[in-house]
Amino acid sequence: LRTGEPEAVYAAGKTTGQLIDITTSLLAAHPDRPVLLTRISDEATAALRDNFDHVTADPLAAAATVGPPASPRNGEVAIACAGTSDLPVAAEAAFTTRAFGLTATMVTDVGVAGIHRVLASRPTLADADCVIVVAGMDGALPSVIGGLIDTPLIAVPTSVGYGSALGGMAPLLTMLNSCAPGVAVVNIDNGYGAAVCAARVVRARHRRVTPVAQATAGAISPPPR
Amino acid sequence: LRTGEPEAVYAAGKTTGQLIDITTSLLAAHPDRPVLLTRISDEATAALRDNFDHVTADPLAAAATVGPPASPRNGEVAIACAGTSDLPVAAEAAFTTRAFGLTATMVTDVGVAGIHRVLASRPTLADADCVIVVAGMDGALPSVIGGLIDTPLIAVPTSVGYGSALGGMAPLLTMLNSCAPGVAVVNIDNGYGAAVCAARVVRARHRRVTPVAQATAGAISPPPR
Amino acid sequence: LRTGEPEAVYAAGKTTGQLIDITTSLLAAHPDRPVLLTRISDEATAALRDNFDHVTADPLAAAATVGPPASPRNGEVAIACAGTSDLPVAAEAAFTTRAFGLTATMVTDVGVAGIHRVLASRPTLADADCVIVVAGMDGALPSVIGGLIDTPLIAVPTSVGYGSALGGMAPLLTMLNSCAPGVAVVNIDNGYGAAVCAARVVRARHRRVTPVAQATAGAISPPPR
Amino acid sequence: LRTGEPEAVYAAGKTTGQLIDITTSLLAAHPDRPVLLTRISDEATAALRDNFDHVTADPLAAAATVGPPASPRNGEVAIACAGTSDLPVAAEAAFTTRAFGLTATMVTDVGVAGIHRVLASRPTLADADCVIVVAGMDGALPSVIGGLIDTPLIAVPTSVGYGSALGGMAPLLTMLNSCAPGVAVVNIDNGYGAAVCAARVVRARHRRVTPVAQATAGAISPPPR
Amino acid sequence: LRTGEPEAVYAAGKTTGQLIDITTSLLAAHPDRPVLLTRISDEATAALRDNFDHVTADPLAAAATVGPPASPRNGEVAIACAGTSDLPVAAEAAFTTRAFGLTATMVTDVGVAGIHRVLASRPTLADADCVIVVAGMDGALPSVIGGLIDTPLIAVPTSVGYGSALGGMAPLLTMLNSCAPGVAVVNIDNGYGAAVCAARVVRARHRRVTPVAQATAGAISPPPR
Amino acid sequence: LRTGEPEAVYAAGKTTGQLIDITTSLLAAHPDRPVLLTRISDEATAALRDNFDHVTADPLAAAATVGPPASPRNGEVAIACAGTSDLPVAAEAAFTTRAFGLTATMVTDVGVAGIHRVLASRPTLADADCVIVVAGMDGALPSVIGGLIDTPLIAVPTSVGYGSALGGMAPLLTMLNSCAPGVAVVNIDNGYGAAVCAARVVRARHRRVTPVAQATAGAISPPPR
Amino acid sequence: LRTGEPEAVYAAGKTTGQLIDITTSLLAAHPDRPVLLTRISDEATAALRDNFDHVTADPLAAAATVGPPASPRNGEVAIACAGTSDLPVAAEAAFTTRAFGLTATMVTDVGVAGIHRVLASRPTLADADCVIVVAGMDGALPSVIGGLIDTPLIAVPTSVGYGSALGGMAPLLTMLNSCAPGVAVVNIDNGYGAAVCAARVVRARHRRVTPVAQATAGAISPPPR
Amino acid sequence: LRTGEPEAVYAAGKTTGQLIDITTSLLAAHPDRPVLLTRISDEATAALRDNFDHVTADPLAAAATVGPPASPRNGEVAIACAGTSDLPVAAEAAFTTRAFGLTATMVTDVGVAGIHRVLASRPTLADADCVIVVAGMDGALPSVIGGLIDTPLIAVPTSVGYGSALGGMAPLLTMLNSCAPGVAVVNIDNGYGAAVCAARVVRARHRRVTPVAQATAGAISPPPR
Ligand SMILES: Nc1ncnc2c1ncn2[C@@H]1O[C@H](COP(=O)(O)O)[C@@H](O)[C@H]1O
Ligand SMILES: Nc1ncnc2c1ncn2[C@@H]1O[C@H](COP(=O)(O)O)[C@@H](O)[C@H]1O
Ligand SMILES: Nc1ncnc2c1ncn2[C@@H]1O[C@H](COP(=O)(O)O)[C@@H](O)[C@H]1O
Ligand SMILES: Nc1ncnc2c1ncn2[C@@H]1O[C@H](COP(=O)(O)O)[C@@H](O)[C@H]1O
Ligand SMILES: [Mg+2]
Ligand SMILES: [Mg+2]
Ligand SMILES: [Mg+2]
Ligand SMILES: [Mg+2]
Ligand SMILES: [Mg+2]
Ligand SMILES: [Mg+2]
Ligand SMILES: [Mg+2]
Ligand SMILES: [Mg+2]
Repeated sequence: LRTGEPEAVYAAGKTTGQLIDITTSLLAAHPDRPVLLTRISDEATAALRDNFDHVTADPLAAAATVGPPASPRNGEVAIACAGTSDLPVAAEAAFTTRAFGLTATMVTDVGVAGIHRVLASRPTLADADCVIVVAGMDGALPSVIGGLIDTPLIAVPTSVGYGSALGGMAPLLTMLNSCAPGVAVVNIDNGYGAAVCAARVVRARHRRVTPVAQATAGAISPPPR
Repeated sequence: LRTGEPEAVYAAGKTTGQLIDITTSLLAAHPDRPVLLTRISDEATAALRDNFDHVTADPLAAAATVGPPASPRNGEVAIACAGTSDLPVAAEAAFTTRAFGLTATMVTDVGVAGIHRVLASRPTLADADCVIVVAGMDGALPSVIGGLIDTPLIAVPTSVGYGSALGGMAPLLTMLNSCAPGVAVVNIDNGYGAAVCAARVVRARHRRVTPVAQATAGAISPPPR
Repeated sequence: LRTGEPEAVYAAGKTTGQLIDITTSLLAAHPDRPVLLTRISDEATAALRDNFDHVTADPLAAAATVGPPASPRNGEVAIACAGTSDLPVAAEAAFTTRAFGLTATMVTDVGVAGIHRVLASRPTLADADCVIVVAGMDGALPSVIGGLIDTPLIAVPTSVGYGSALGGMAPLLTMLNSCAPGVAVVNIDNGYGAAVCAARVVRARHRRVTPVAQATAGAISPPPR
Repeated sequence: LRTGEPEAVYAAGKTTGQLIDITTSLLAAHPDRPVLLTRISDEATAALRDNFDHVTADPLAAAATVGPPASPRNGEVAIACAGTSDLPVAAEAAFTTRAFGLTATMVTDVGVAGIHRVLASRPTLADADCVIVVAGMDGALPSVIGGLIDTPLIAVPTSVGYGSALGGMAPLLTMLNSCAPGVAVVNIDNGYGAAVCAARVVRARHRRVTPVAQATAGAISPPPR
Repeated sequence: LRTGEPEAVYAAGKTTGQLIDITTSLLAAHPDRPVLLTRISDEATAALRDNFDHVTADPLAAAATVGPPASPRNGEVAIACAGTSDLPVAAEAAFTTRAFGLTATMVTDVGVAGIHRVLASRPTLADADCVIVVAGMDGALPSVIGGLIDTPLIAVPTSVGYGSALGGMAPLLTMLNSCAPGVAVVNIDNGYGAAVCAARVVRARHRRVTPVAQATAGAISPPPR
Repeated sequence: LRTGEPEAVYAAGKTTGQLIDITTSLLAAHPDRPVLLTRISDEATAALRDNFDHVTADPLAAAATVGPPASPRNGEVAIACAGTSDLPVAAEAAFTTRAFGLTATMVTDVGVAGIHRVLASRPTLADADCVIVVAGMDGALPSVIGGLIDTPLIAVPTSVGYGSALGGMAPLLTMLNSCAPGVAVVNIDNGYGAAVCAARVVRARHRRVTPVAQATAGAISPPPR
Repeated sequence: LRTGEPEAVYAAGKTTGQLIDITTSLLAAHPDRPVLLTRISDEATAALRDNFDHVTADPLAAAATVGPPASPRNGEVAIACAGTSDLPVAAEAAFTTRAFGLTATMVTDVGVAGIHRVLASRPTLADADCVIVVAGMDGALPSVIGGLIDTPLIAVPTSVGYGSALGGMAPLLTMLNSCAPGVAVVNIDNGYGAAVCAARVVRARHRRVTPVAQATAGAISPPPR
Repeated sequence: LRTGEPEAVYAAGKTTGQLIDITTSLLAAHPDRPVLLTRISDEATAALRDNFDHVTADPLAAAATVGPPASPRNGEVAIACAGTSDLPVAAEAAFTTRAFGLTATMVTDVGVAGIHRVLASRPTLADADCVIVVAGMDGALPSVIGGLIDTPLIAVPTSVGYGSALGGMAPLLTMLNSCAPGVAVVNIDNGYGAAVCAARVVRARHRRVTPVAQATAGAISPPPR
């Protein structure tokens, strides 16, 4: 892994003691980069604050970082979701994005049953380097957004819903069968994984194009819209 | 069942001989109404034409009627689908609708990944007495249309797709979890059932409102939009 | 959405504070219509009563409304279920129906294993504008009722049962495969969605038939039975 | 196994040569009892006729017996199903019942969506020693019949249907969750297994009650209805 | 239902108050027969004792009866299971059997991995009028016992197990696919339903054979073994 | 969609006549860009050659293009798979990639059970702008490759396998649960969708970084490795 | 892989030409060991015989080897199954076992519904180094055999059965939940994999015990690598 | 079962009183061998210590033994897993292995996304008599290790993960479809069963090779039965 990128700890099912131990040893091994803890309780976050100096946390995302922040980079990830229930997953994606030193822009309250708000969000989404779309229940939002923009789009199904939502399997299947081509999908509620995927996309941009662009800027004109 | 409404025969898995026999006896029992045959092959339809006088058929719908048409009624059903692959199911719904004496309006080529065509279809859909929305793969179309209109909306998932579409289970689950409230769902590929449901809706309108409206037209003003 | 129709809030998983905030802002935006809260706890309902003037609630339905009632309309929805265990879902459907200004008639204690009580309920069900049938376990009730009446019929599977009932998937599949044609289905335990669907059916009746009926009352005699 | 009861061969996937060999050796081992072949093609049945003397067959049931018939017994099994599509499974049950020397009574054309025909069949069903109910799609018929009679009732789901019928899993789940208590279920399309189960029930009757009845006929009056 | 047979109440999810009300009204309607309550907690059972005179209960079965016992009948049901974990389901079957006035014989500690104990239980099982076999995990016991006896055999899968036992779906599928023919299956953990099925089998024996036996005792010799 | 990018037609289930008609009208509407046909038979491809001038095709990929090629762009997609059986899906991804004007590099014969060949492929994979990993059966390859490189990685499960591979559901679930973070997944056998996703990633690179890099090259040094 | 052990080719879905090419190159690379082809058609086997000298084949197993046989080793694998339908899978296991130079002993016609034949097979099974148990439908046989012997036991579910056998998923789940501890399971119909597993077990025996049994180091030379 | 081998008790769902009773009677029946209790709580373990003399326990494994230890044997089982979350299952396997008198070697922190640590563990794993590989989420580790060693390999899926991990079904399916041949699988979280399977493998080695190694018959006495 490259310098400064966070080490990640999945805190669910670990005791506060275990989390402090793991964080301590990861910081010792890589003092230049943050430790990112996801699925962390408020109690465990409070314990982190008692034990370490640089703790940032978002209770909605159930996430925290300890240690030096990642160095900021030039890259913007837009994260869209329909409503309150999907917010924790969207917030996990945003918190992780920021822990990687990237800019995260939240676009909430866009649901397919209110299509005009989705259309109104198009400029923001089209402007990002990568878009993460979070949706539960019918999981239809990525299909609509995927038809509006040609940005890389990562879909995150959530476990929001009941009955035949099957704990998120329904929106997962919806997204895998999206009629908008080029939609890629991560596990149910996996805001963290979507953000790491987005960081891979942005990283590819930095690493590869800059030298090519310098040599061939005249040859490769930006593709017309 | 009321006079004139078709008797239905599910022709899949029946021999031509069986179909002719069943049709003959149904016509004898109810000479005033058509027999509707669904999932019928072109060969069986040809055999019907050899044996009966009044045969109408739609090969795309794989459906036929034999006997007197249903008396026309005042009622319009709009049927929307995204593309070529869903057309047979949409056509089964339309053929059945017409076999019940109602008007069927097809709105094809509306997919959620091309949202502007969906928006453009809104007036047609909003104007119908009942809307049937047919979709495979992600099954997202009813969620979008359900947010655009307040007409009764029946969603039909199709078996179009592959892999995790699971023979239509993916769009079925999508539709059952639609974030547009009031969407009702029938079985995979069941264009016939959706049309019968629509006929129930239109029938309710005729049977019940007319007398009420006559007595209370002043009291119950049409709700404002 | 039309004037007076309720805004709906799914209260499960939201804090009392969030519910009060959302209710306040919805009432501010649409002072002419009620806010409907479903899946709400008794505690949250009590908090609503502390904060708002016009609160109506049904603990069995786990539902409440805040604000001005919807203006009453001419429309009756019959809601049938077999027994005690399905009552909460049936009550959610009834409460929602009434929140839309319609009349809800409950027909309880009709189960397919006691077919004579089902037969006895036929006049009530046939008389309604729309029928909602709620059933868990085998989910067989809509198939029987669907064969008795030609009213629009919306089936609601419930999560009542155990083992191979699979949290309601068993009655859901039963209803989707009903041998009574024209049965439409909503998600497991979704009494709310069934009632919104019924409101769409009744609304279609009002909006469309009245003008037609005025012009053609002589031409379109009520269909014979 | 008791004398005279048939040996069973599941012919699906076996060559005609294999079937003749197996039948030959079973007849040699048990010359006093028939060999029952299920899921047999018309071609294989014709080959049996070429090779053996006493062949009886029912093409609808796809079943045949070779050798001496089972000695007739005092016992009647009623087999009910809704329609044409379920007939092959019902016929397999009937053929197997007869191969065990019992009487099989078919009650066809009874579907839950036409409840009055079901009610009309009650005396026939109540009069049998054991009832087998065959149903596909919604699989609702055993729940209704189970509430009408107190005879032992074996339910057989069929693979008739499409889409969410899931090859018979939908009616199987319906039957396992029947709200009529005391319904027992066999595998999808397993008319053979249902008939063997019925033969167990009838056999129990013969073997056990006779001596008891002789000693206690006065004491154990038939339970009142 | 016949005189004296218990009315059954599924107590899970009902309040103590509801249980007392339902029991009171059932006793009023049918003072000659017991009320059977299954899935009842120890607390609710204690409350029954406070409110009614004739309460019998089995905490292992989580079952109780209130009111006059069913009149004893001539009929024996054997109930087999492998071990401690399946005992509550077996006990529910036994308690229900006894509530119907029949004799219940428990055969515990017979598991397919200790085949000699299964073999040793054969005489007891073969001697019963009906056998109920309860098994979780692999659900293999009915296949072995079904090959040892020709008594009617009802298989009850249990939710005992973890992981791929899928809450009892694994033994349920095993039993539906038993290679011993004539095994019939009820829902997961449904000891009650198995006992009602057994009561149907025993009832059939009483009701039907006695008169026949009187007339034909010479003609119908008991089938040889 | 931007100029020159292919229009896609899913040829499965369409007649040759339909394919020629659709291709003709798409070429008329967008004469500057190719039409891409996937899941096309050799016969249909031959018919395309008879009717159009510029046809390129890959029988292994079951894909073809008609019309002017997409203008070449600066972007390389590496496509890895384990063996012969997965080649058609990998070839569909490669053909689609090239139809978008990008370079596709195939890395075949890398399976997790032969880990050293996977390790040997690392430089090629790390050098690409985007990596597509195709795997059936256990679907484990993306987890290994995802730990070796930090390139965007799109995983494609295939339907290769039998039994518990469940038509590709097994590797699909594997990939969604990859312990290498940042793996994104498309539908089973969807080589086309993976390539469109890769084209989105490469497009993002071109469109966005060039101007930013020019203005801020000093400020944003490429991240150290 | 060690000297002499076969290279395996899964022939299903490969053309005869591909099979000849792959076989040719594997023989060139490893002239000292056989190539094993599984799931091969009779036609492809005939083509192998036309092209290579040393071909052995078993049509029942749908398997063949080409090239020098594996050197015989000291090790015996017993393979048990219930009947005709499971024979192809058992034969694949036996053929593969022999292709590894080990002895394979078939024990057929042992089904759990005929427990005495299973008991009679105990000495043969207990005497083997490793036992493979093949079973479809209920998949109960490994649970019984696992309780009779303490030999390593590998269970192979088969796709034999219909309906709720779910293509072999039912016996697979049975075996994973075996109440005989220490049963290990391979994929549905995977006779090949079970035999490779058995070869690992036998190999472990040879390789490892030798050094411990220090007195016999000369007699049992470690197998070459 | 052979002398000295532990009797196993599955403690989950049993009361402390029941566990003490069962342990007492098992010790009385087999005073020469330990009782192994798995899935035991810390409280129940403390109660064991209060009641018995020789108690060993591992809280991480949730396992304990009471009574004389199994006599040590010559045999080593290596147990590999990726991380903290899988440790309880790995520990259950190790504790059980040791309770059988064998040596257990833990290899933790080997995950497929960090392939170099997996490669570094190869000598340890290759050196064992039997290898148990424990993995959740993608379950990919057995496929990689299975390609590195030719030791018997038992794969244990764990319920670690969320969403589409489906409680361990995802890694279970992965392992059943491993592209490394000869991988055998036990139930989700079944560390106990994997260890019993490993003990079968080691036992086979001891029991069988000895007679072949005729010179060492005295040194390695056959284990008593
Ligand atoms: N396409 C269809 N899909 C589902 N059900 C149908 C269809 N066409 C007819 N049916 C139903 O099948 C019944 C007739 O079935 P059958 O008696 O087998 O011909 C009709 O009463 C309809 O309820
Ligand atoms: N239609 C059927 N469905 C299920 N099992 C059957 C059927 N017919 C025969 N069998 C069973 O299959 C066994 C014979 O199988 P086989 O030895 O493969 O011919 C008989 O003993 C019966 O238990
Ligand atoms: N191999 C494929 N897999 C999945 N979707 C595809 C494939 N090829 C084309 N498509 C999609 O199918 C759409 C065209 O569908 P159709 O109009 O039915 O030809 C295209 O816009 C693509 O989004
Ligand atoms: N952790 C475990 N997972 C699966 N089976 C177990 C486990 N521990 C013990 N067993 C099995 O459970 C049996 C004892 O079950 P019981 O009689 O209910 O205590 C033992 O003989 C083992 O076969
Ligand atoms: Mg959404
Ligand atoms: Mg769609
Ligand atoms: Mg019901
Ligand atoms: Mg039915
Ligand atoms: Mg068992
Ligand atoms: Mg792979
Ligand atoms: Mg078996
Ligand atoms: Mg892993």
